[in-house]
Amino acid sequence: MKRVVFGRPLPSARLEHERLSKKTGLAVLSSDAISSVAYATEQILLVLAVLGAGALTYVVPVSGVIVGLLVLVALSYRQTIFAYPHGGGSYTVARENLGRMPGLIAAAALLTDYILTVAVSISAGVAAITSAYASLAPHVVLLCLGATCILMTVNLRGVRDSGIAFSVPTYVFIGLMLLLIGAGVVKVLAGAVPSASGPLPSTHGPGTPLGFAYTFLILRGFAEGCVAMTGTEAISNGVGAFKAPSARNAAMTLTWMAVILAAFFLGISYLTLHYRLMPSPSETILSQLGRQVFGRGWLYFALQYATFALLVLAANTAFADFPRLSSILAQDGYMPRQFAARGDRLAFSNGIVALALVAMLLVWLFKGDTSALIPLYAIGVFVCFSLSQAGMVVRWFRTRAPGWHWRAALNGIGAVATGLVALVQVVTKFTSGAWIVVLIIPMIIAILMKIHRHYEFFAREVQYEGYAPLMFLHHTVVVPVNGITKPAASALVYATTISEDVRAVYVEVDPDATQRLRAAWSEWDIGVELRVLPSPYRSVIKPIAGYVKDLLEEGHADLVTVVVAEVVPRKWWEHLLHNKTALFVRTAFLFTPNVVVTAVPYLLGHAARLRDLLHHDEQLDSETREQAAMLAIRA
Amino acid sequence: MKRVVFGRPLPSARLEHERLSKKTGLAVLSSDAISSVAYATEQILLVLAVLGAGALTYVVPVSGVIVGLLVLVALSYRQTIFAYPHGGGSYTVARENLGRMPGLIAAAALLTDYILTVAVSISAGVAAITSAYASLAPHVVLLCLGATCILMTVNLRGVRDSGIAFSVPTYVFIGLMLLLIGAGVVKVLAGAVPSASGPLPSTHGPGTPLGFAYTFLILRGFAEGCVAMTGTEAISNGVGAFKAPSARNAAMTLTWMAVILAAFFLGISYLTLHYRLMPSPSETILSQLGRQVFGRGWLYFALQYATFALLVLAANTAFADFPRLSSILAQDGYMPRQFAARGDRLAFSNGIVALALVAMLLVWLFKGDTSALIPLYAIGVFVCFSLSQAGMVVRWFRTRAPGWHWRAALNGIGAVATGLVALVQVVTKFTSGAWIVVLIIPMIIAILMKIHRHYEFFAREVQYEGYAPLMFLHHTVVVPVNGITKPAASALVYATTISEDVRAVYVEVDPDATQRLRAAWSEWDIGVELRVLPSPYRSVIKPIAGYVKDLLEEGHADLVTVVVAEVVPRKWWEHLLHNKTALFVRTAFLFTPNVVVTAVPYLLGHAARLRDLLHHDEQLDSETREQAAMLAIRA
Repeated sequence: MKRVVFGRPLPSARLEHERLSKKTGLAVLSSDAISSVAYATEQILLVLAVLGAGALTYVVPVSGVIVGLLVLVALSYRQTIFAYPHGGGSYTVARENLGRMPGLIAAAALLTDYILTVAVSISAGVAAITSAYASLAPHVVLLCLGATCILMTVNLRGVRDSGIAFSVPTYVFIGLMLLLIGAGVVKVLAGAVPSASGPLPSTHGPGTPLGFAYTFLILRGFAEGCVAMTGTEAISNGVGAFKAPSARNAAMTLTWMAVILAAFFLGISYLTLHYRLMPSPSETILSQLGRQVFGRGWLYFALQYATFALLVLAANTAFADFPRLSSILAQDGYMPRQFAARGDRLAFSNGIVALALVAMLLVWLFKGDTSALIPLYAIGVFVCFSLSQAGMVVRWFRTRAPGWHWRAALNGIGAVATGLVALVQVVTKFTSGAWIVVLIIPMIIAILMKIHRHYEFFAREVQYEGYAPLMFLHHTVVVPVNGITKPAASALVYATTISEDVRAVYVEVDPDATQRLRAAWSEWDIGVELRVLPSPYRSVIKPIAGYVKDLLEEGHADLVTVVVAEVVPRKWWEHLLHNKTALFVRTAFLFTPNVVVTAVPYLLGHAARLRDLLHHDEQLDSETREQAAMLAIRA
Repeated sequence: MKRVVFGRPLPSARLEHERLSKKTGLAVLSSDAISSVAYATEQILLVLAVLGAGALTYVVPVSGVIVGLLVLVALSYRQTIFAYPHGGGSYTVARENLGRMPGLIAAAALLTDYILTVAVSISAGVAAITSAYASLAPHVVLLCLGATCILMTVNLRGVRDSGIAFSVPTYVFIGLMLLLIGAGVVKVLAGAVPSASGPLPSTHGPGTPLGFAYTFLILRGFAEGCVAMTGTEAISNGVGAFKAPSARNAAMTLTWMAVILAAFFLGISYLTLHYRLMPSPSETILSQLGRQVFGRGWLYFALQYATFALLVLAANTAFADFPRLSSILAQDGYMPRQFAARGDRLAFSNGIVALALVAMLLVWLFKGDTSALIPLYAIGVFVCFSLSQAGMVVRWFRTRAPGWHWRAALNGIGAVATGLVALVQVVTKFTSGAWIVVLIIPMIIAILMKIHRHYEFFAREVQYEGYAPLMFLHHTVVVPVNGITKPAASALVYATTISEDVRAVYVEVDPDATQRLRAAWSEWDIGVELRVLPSPYRSVIKPIAGYVKDLLEEGHADLVTVVVAEVVPRKWWEHLLHNKTALFVRTAFLFTPNVVVTAVPYLLGHAARLRDLLHHDEQLDSETREQAAMLAIRA
């Protein structure tokens, strides 16, 4: 079952072959950034619409400023890629150059944003589908959860498979977008757009009495539009996943990504304005634009499907990056070590599953509404942009590599600009959801630090200090029995194998039963003396614990092993029918030094099976058969 | 905490002192039967009301028939008490005399009815309170759940405490009821009841065109009224709980109970008719009657509180009997053996908790509505009456004790009569809930039989057949290590203690790490060779499992112990930060014959504590201190 869904295990030696070419790299790592054109313009419009139709003209200048910022960030990240050819995520850069706390801030911000990438992209992707088919609108949450599950499964199969499976939709989307923007612009310039034939409406300036609130909302529109830039860092985080020469390939891919993103974002903003489109809860701006330019024909539907597919890919970017960052954090001791290792398909299985679960929770809480999730988004990204570039500035000052002056200046400008944008985001979106992020990032940092402190403590605790190990002088084995049974015989045989000093103990609840057992025991030739422990309060564990404690304290033993027979039923419900004595004994002695508890499993139904096998094997002589029957006792 | 709520453990020797006198026995065991007067008349009226006001006069003859039946059953059970002085529940009597299946039917019916006793009594008790205080009506379910929890806690403290705590309300209730019925009858006879001054309404007979439906509903009224008889069997089930001479005391108590019940039931039915009372969803009949006779003064409120208290006591009857029956069934191998033993307060803790949980589920499902629960009730009781008395008939024929002819005849008439009533119950109440019971009783029987089959199989499986046990010729110990650490050292020291042939194995994931470990190991003087197992698919467990399998199959070992170091963190969340290797190894070998897995616990934070202690103990010489430091490795 697991094999069919996730594929056969892959040997570690195949890791090198699972690298990305430029083409697949663009599909796998750039889709987050490119796909944001599907919702970024709409988020600006949603804010500007509050100011009246006149304010909508600001969509083009606001988009222009965002593209300027994008160019700045992309140039900065090109420098990071060459400086960190093995993958320079914001965490690595901030930690190496700025220190531990900035590194942890970057890590927490990135973890938050990867989760939001999945939640936002899946919601926006499903919105593309429900825009085309209104009847699916009531099933938004279900569609979102289903898409996330599929994505998780694909990623558990490993990185190369996803590269191949996801290349086609990216390039189909790019082609369709070029067609859409090209055809749209031609129509506008030819005056063939009926609604665009009149003059554009005039606007109020910030000088009117509404000045402050007006400026605040324009800023908020800018802050919301900045989601267009999310995902820009994905390529520099994933340099290590590219084929050699990985830095050059990654840098080239980054440039292409920035160019495509800028062109699409500006194109859509321009067309939205000239087609006089208004945001609607039932249809996305991109869907409206597609309908206007292509008509409701096959090109329109292809665009919607491609948008959906690309947004699923965008979520996939996070599925590539979240587990990779978790693995780095786990290796540094900031996340549970279960996140550090690759699973049997060479993917970081635990990170993938964790991401999918948290993202699904988020989609479910926000009912799959993209606009409700967006205010939480992008803050972490800009915090990381800023920290990463500040880190680069420090690095240039340290390395003084050729051209470090202007390189440091470029990163410095980037750091200040993105830092300011992060501040604008927190302030303008605070009441509409940003407060959640402001609360959660410090919480994540606290958790990461708590985990780190535990691993540091653990490392100190287990460190071997060079003492010659102590040999135990006297090893006593205590075997609790409740009758002369095969499981008890197994436990006793095992006990006599591991020590000379074996003591069978019986907890007395009913004196009559004790008499009967004593009589039977004296006839038995197991060679171990039976000791009876009184239990006035009917507890089984306490008398045994007391007996063991006495052995150690009175110096009769340096080390005690308690050997318990453990009945292993064949079916789950049969567990409910047996006292879990082995478990209780183990728990009782967990914190007692120099006591080890060993459960000797006795499989119900297994002995019978073994005997049947012997019955059919005619080559065995009678002595061997008898020996084997003995073995069956242990089976 | 546990001590404060449930009290100190009690020694087994105190069991004899926890017996009931006649007075406390009446309070503890008869409250179920007596308290049913609080709702039985109302249930008859609810059905008769469908036929119109004229039919209400049937309430007195119907009640009369039920009292006749009660006398018959009580006489039958007096015979049972003397025949089974150690407690003759329907299960015991039916099983001994009629065989296994009738015994199981009785057991299933009783278990069902005990649960319903709790649910119905608690709901009816809360109804007494909400009748007096209408504002509490919206919190019915919460009040029911709270009362059940309190009852559970009281019973977990043990049987004697409950006897004392519950005697007062029973006798207060009996006193108030005598006052109520006395005063009510006097008022009626004196003509002081305004509404009763006119002539009683005339009735349609069964001869009218509505004949069949009419008779059916009268029968259904009778069936619902039979809930008055539930609990009659409690005393004969609990003979063993009485002080010696237990049979005589129990029989006397039973007689008193029957007399009180009959008087109260007839009295209320008579007064209900003459006060022209009609059932209402917001106020019980008993509350209406109390208001009419006493006025809304302190006597009325005392009656409501006493009714509530007595109904809680009725639920308590089930808390005495359900665990006792479960214990008998568990000893006979029909229920999990965890139900067989008494807890540390001499009460059957598991049975008490199980009963409380199921009853609370039922109350929650039926929203604490007594009338909705009643149709499920009483069927099981009459099935048991019939089986128990049929069993007694068989017993008289077998023992031929003095007077067996007329005794067998009495039990025979009882068996037939109660059997017919059970049939009437199923038929008339089928659609209003009885079908659930008809479904559940066979299900319970199936579960009891499945459990029994497992225990029989288990007993055969573990039976020791007299072979001399096999000694293992070669015992090999395999110790998985992941580095030179204190936990690994502990595991290796333990391993060398239990066998000569110890093999440390290391699962290689990264060849560089292997090289470093090999170098360090060769400098280490632990005296155990390191074996490196390759793991191309990065699994830790599979290479170890393969190595152990090879050892056994190639004849290098007859028995393999895998010794795993198990890190025991100090806090629950720290468990999430460690790979549960010990658990996975145990699971991997659970079904492999001749392999035992031993976890050597390594307590984080403990070693440091030990060293601190040593530091303050100045009497220790340096050698002892060094020895103790070694021990700390194992701690």
